Amino acid sequence: MSRIANDKYRDKVMSAEEAAKLIKNGDRVGFSGFTGAGYPKALPEALAAQIKAAHEAGEDFKIASYTGASTAPEHDGALAAVDGISMRMPYQSDPIMRNKINAGVSDYADVHLSHTAPQVRQGFWGNLDVAVVEVAAIKEDGTAIPSSSIGNNNVYLEKADKIILEVNAWQSLDLEGMHDVYSMKLPGENVPIPIQAPGDRIGSTTYDIDWSRVAAVIETDAEDRNTPFKPLDEDSKTIANNLLDFLANEVKQGRMPKDLLPMQSGVGNIANAVLVGLNEGPFERLTSYTEVIQDGMVDMIDSGKLLVASATAFSLSPEAAAKMNDGAAHYRNHIVLRPQEVSNNPEVIRRLGVVSCNGMIEADIYGNVNSTHIMGSRMMNGIGGSGDFTRNAYISCFVSPSLAKDGDISAIVPMVSHHDHTEHDVQVIITEQGLADLRGLSPKQRARVIIENCAHPDYREMLLDYVAQAERKANGAHTPHDLETAHAWHRRFLESGSMKQS
Amino acid sequence: MSRIANDKYRDKVMSAEEAAKLIKNGDRVGFSGFTGAGYPKALPEALAAQIKAAHEAGEDFKIASYTGASTAPEHDGALAAVDGISMRMPYQSDPIMRNKINAGVSDYADVHLSHTAPQVRQGFWGNLDVAVVEVAAIKEDGTAIPSSSIGNNNVYLEKADKIILEVNAWQSLDLEGMHDVYSMKLPGENVPIPIQAPGDRIGSTTYDIDWSRVAAVIETDAEDRNTPFKPLDEDSKTIANNLLDFLANEVKQGRMPKDLLPMQSGVGNIANAVLVGLNEGPFERLTSYTEVIQDGMVDMIDSGKLLVASATAFSLSPEAAAKMNDGAAHYRNHIVLRPQEVSNNPEVIRRLGVVSCNGMIEADIYGNVNSTHIMGSRMMNGIGGSGDFTRNAYISCFVSPSLAKDGDISAIVPMVSHHDHTEHDVQVIITEQGLADLRGLSPKQRARVIIENCAHPDYREMLLDYVAQAERKANGAHTPHDLETAHAWHRRFLESGSMKQS
Repeated sequence: MSRIANDKYRDKVMSAEEAAKLIKNGDRVGFSGFTGAGYPKALPEALAAQIKAAHEAGEDFKIASYTGASTAPEHDGALAAVDGISMRMPYQSDPIMRNKINAGVSDYADVHLSHTAPQVRQGFWGNLDVAVVEVAAIKEDGTAIPSSSIGNNNVYLEKADKIILEVNAWQSLDLEGMHDVYSMKLPGENVPIPIQAPGDRIGSTTYDIDWSRVAAVIETDAEDRNTPFKPLDEDSKTIANNLLDFLANEVKQGRMPKDLLPMQSGVGNIANAVLVGLNEGPFERLTSYTEVIQDGMVDMIDSGKLLVASATAFSLSPEAAAKMNDGAAHYRNHIVLRPQEVSNNPEVIRRLGVVSCNGMIEADIYGNVNSTHIMGSRMMNGIGGSGDFTRNAYISCFVSPSLAKDGDISAIVPMVSHHDHTEHDVQVIITEQGLADLRGLSPKQRARVIIENCAHPDYREMLLDYVAQAERKANGAHTPHDLETAHAWHRRFLESGSMKQS
Repeated sequence: MSRIANDKYRDKVMSAEEAAKLIKNGDRVGFSGFTGAGYPKALPEALAAQIKAAHEAGEDFKIASYTGASTAPEHDGALAAVDGISMRMPYQSDPIMRNKINAGVSDYADVHLSHTAPQVRQGFWGNLDVAVVEVAAIKEDGTAIPSSSIGNNNVYLEKADKIILEVNAWQSLDLEGMHDVYSMKLPGENVPIPIQAPGDRIGSTTYDIDWSRVAAVIETDAEDRNTPFKPLDEDSKTIANNLLDFLANEVKQGRMPKDLLPMQSGVGNIANAVLVGLNEGPFERLTSYTEVIQDGMVDMIDSGKLLVASATAFSLSPEAAAKMNDGAAHYRNHIVLRPQEVSNNPEVIRRLGVVSCNGMIEADIYGNVNSTHIMGSRMMNGIGGSGDFTRNAYISCFVSPSLAKDGDISAIVPMVSHHDHTEHDVQVIITEQGLADLRGLSPKQRARVIIENCAHPDYREMLLDYVAQAERKANGAHTPHDLETAHAWHRRFLESGSMKQS
């Protein structure tokens, strides 16, 4: 049975190749897609073929590609492989895309995820020529059921001159009712976001689409890019336990309610270890106000530990995705998917008192965090929503193993090589070595606790030596740095392949 | 006539010296005071004398001093001069206090101004032993009329074990009705802040004080630390004009309403030049949602250009302060003073679409900004509310002359020596040379426009040389840096007294 119940939309059905012809060189395109969920499955590859043909004919053809966050090889990867992207924003994680960004083929702007929709609405990213948005179905009344992510779809659908829809039959029809589509407005028209608990619903379950701008509808049946779940390693478990012990102590000290506060967590191994730990731990009636629904959260809903999770997208293993698709009619009672301008909104995050937990590349002795750049220059994936949550969290945490590259890189350095989160925002740093609670500490006090609690023993003496030298050269001072050697560890790594002194 | 209309409070009147004895070594004290307005005028000096005597007797005596923001010589200066402060937070600007912080006598935590009240309420700063708060009067019903700032007074009055009030007869009684006292709560109890326009009033005009905790009332009659107004210099006027031209173009491009959006501005010469420019310029019916009311805003209220200004404190010249005291009954129709957890709240700033404009020490070629540290180590005043406004602004601007120290310091450097605002948050940089609009640009694009538009010609070639070298050494890469020379300019200044190459 067709997923397109409205005749007018059915009349617009065409192949991805035909639809791709609607996109021209220089166009600004807003795509669906967030952490490999809900991105268009057919149009990007058809567009890439068209771009490739143009380049072979000696013609210019590049588009500006705006998304929710990361997509997939058949989307970012395909367009990047043909040098088809002039400007990319915001978060990305595809290896080909990343290489093109670092090679200067594609420009990239690393925007906070909560900033993208308002900035597009305000016109700061130019006229939006096309929106390409995956949906699960088009209903008889012309509204569309969102698929496995919302991201910036609401604003792209509102602002684009032309709309291309992909109707993906792989997505469960039982997703209907899980989404809460609510759009912010321009200043002067904005009202308070009426969310007072993670599960509050304030919008509609479908996209209300302006039919007059719909230029094409494509039918697909393709799985999301779901990443296999890796077994938990020892470091991740230890880091998760350090966090859980900390939370238990906060409850004991009366600084946190016994059911904790809504949890936010980034993606990846450590985040999943935290979720596994919470699932096995003493806390009950938990909630989550976060960006993405991960495997561990689905397990916690199954066990009854997690009452409700709010996010903007899934990021599941193939097994969990299959379970979600089968059980969406059940899970939609416990999961709310929102636009990222709401899931990541400072207003709601601060009001609810979210506890944030995000991964990092490195932290320095004063509590600054680098989430994005390798050795100061090379972009990895982008800041994502880590800034939205960190700045506004009740307590903000960053996690990483203390070592990388078989011990040649220390996650704790004298001065981070790129600053994404400053000393003003970072409250707790956790490695497998331990936890540094930076609340209420001055920079010199922070340095002591970060080095003692978080740095790997192989690097502790070197860090203490740096502190001593910095204090001497800066005559004490509030945040002692020796600008001669602050980045010496990174330079040494670039030269010798190790931060260690030979 | 006494300013204390309630008998119970009158019974608690004592000298500052007697009241100071209520404060003990190790106490955590929450003081009123914000940008030299509304700080206690008598207690700090009496306490400093007591601390000095204890030290002379060989006893330990230090307190943790929390405020709204900066205070005055007779407050921060007096307590710092006797080495009486163990921990200071948040913003400070007193020269003696600053020296003690940089000498390591006092620890200092540079907290976002919007974070201080919630963190104190959450218990992250320990038990609050004493609140010392200046008020304009105590009414018959025991409520108190705030004086020339609110800052964190609401939370200090709520949380402190003991309350010491200073009733200052210098403050105008006509301030009554200007304030809007509204306290946030803990997560779970918080509701949306119902402000939809800068002038909206949502709270009470007085402090509701728990009498049972009032330990002392002191009567004073002393002026705020008001800073004389400096005549505008040419650079400030040029910078202001660059901003005003930019705003006019935003209106023309349809990205801003013709009455602009609520303006926030930091303090100082450039901010006042902007206000003077706005007062003489074409925009009408302006509003302000900011931290402090400056001379220029009072002039704009007088001229009818500014309909309403919301802030948490005054920062006026002695002449403007006198005018405000005489005319408070009029100005209270155009000014709302709020707790800093509301004036600086991301929720309201983002909802209203505030245009922020803050000073800086330096910016780098990729758009990172240093607001706090000289040459990476030495603390100046702190980040204040610049992060609250910048991160959540509709458009965020930073301003500075392109040169300092007679040309030996460039405000545009390869890499800032301290990061307070990252590339993700900074949208516009303005010097007397011109304006760099960074919206929608990648790091390499930003470098070009910042160097061309903002750097002083004396440093442009050096910056371009750095970019070329960084691109070579980093093999292009997204944000090319040469970690060998990224801070070479700062090192050269520390060694030779100039960033210029000899």
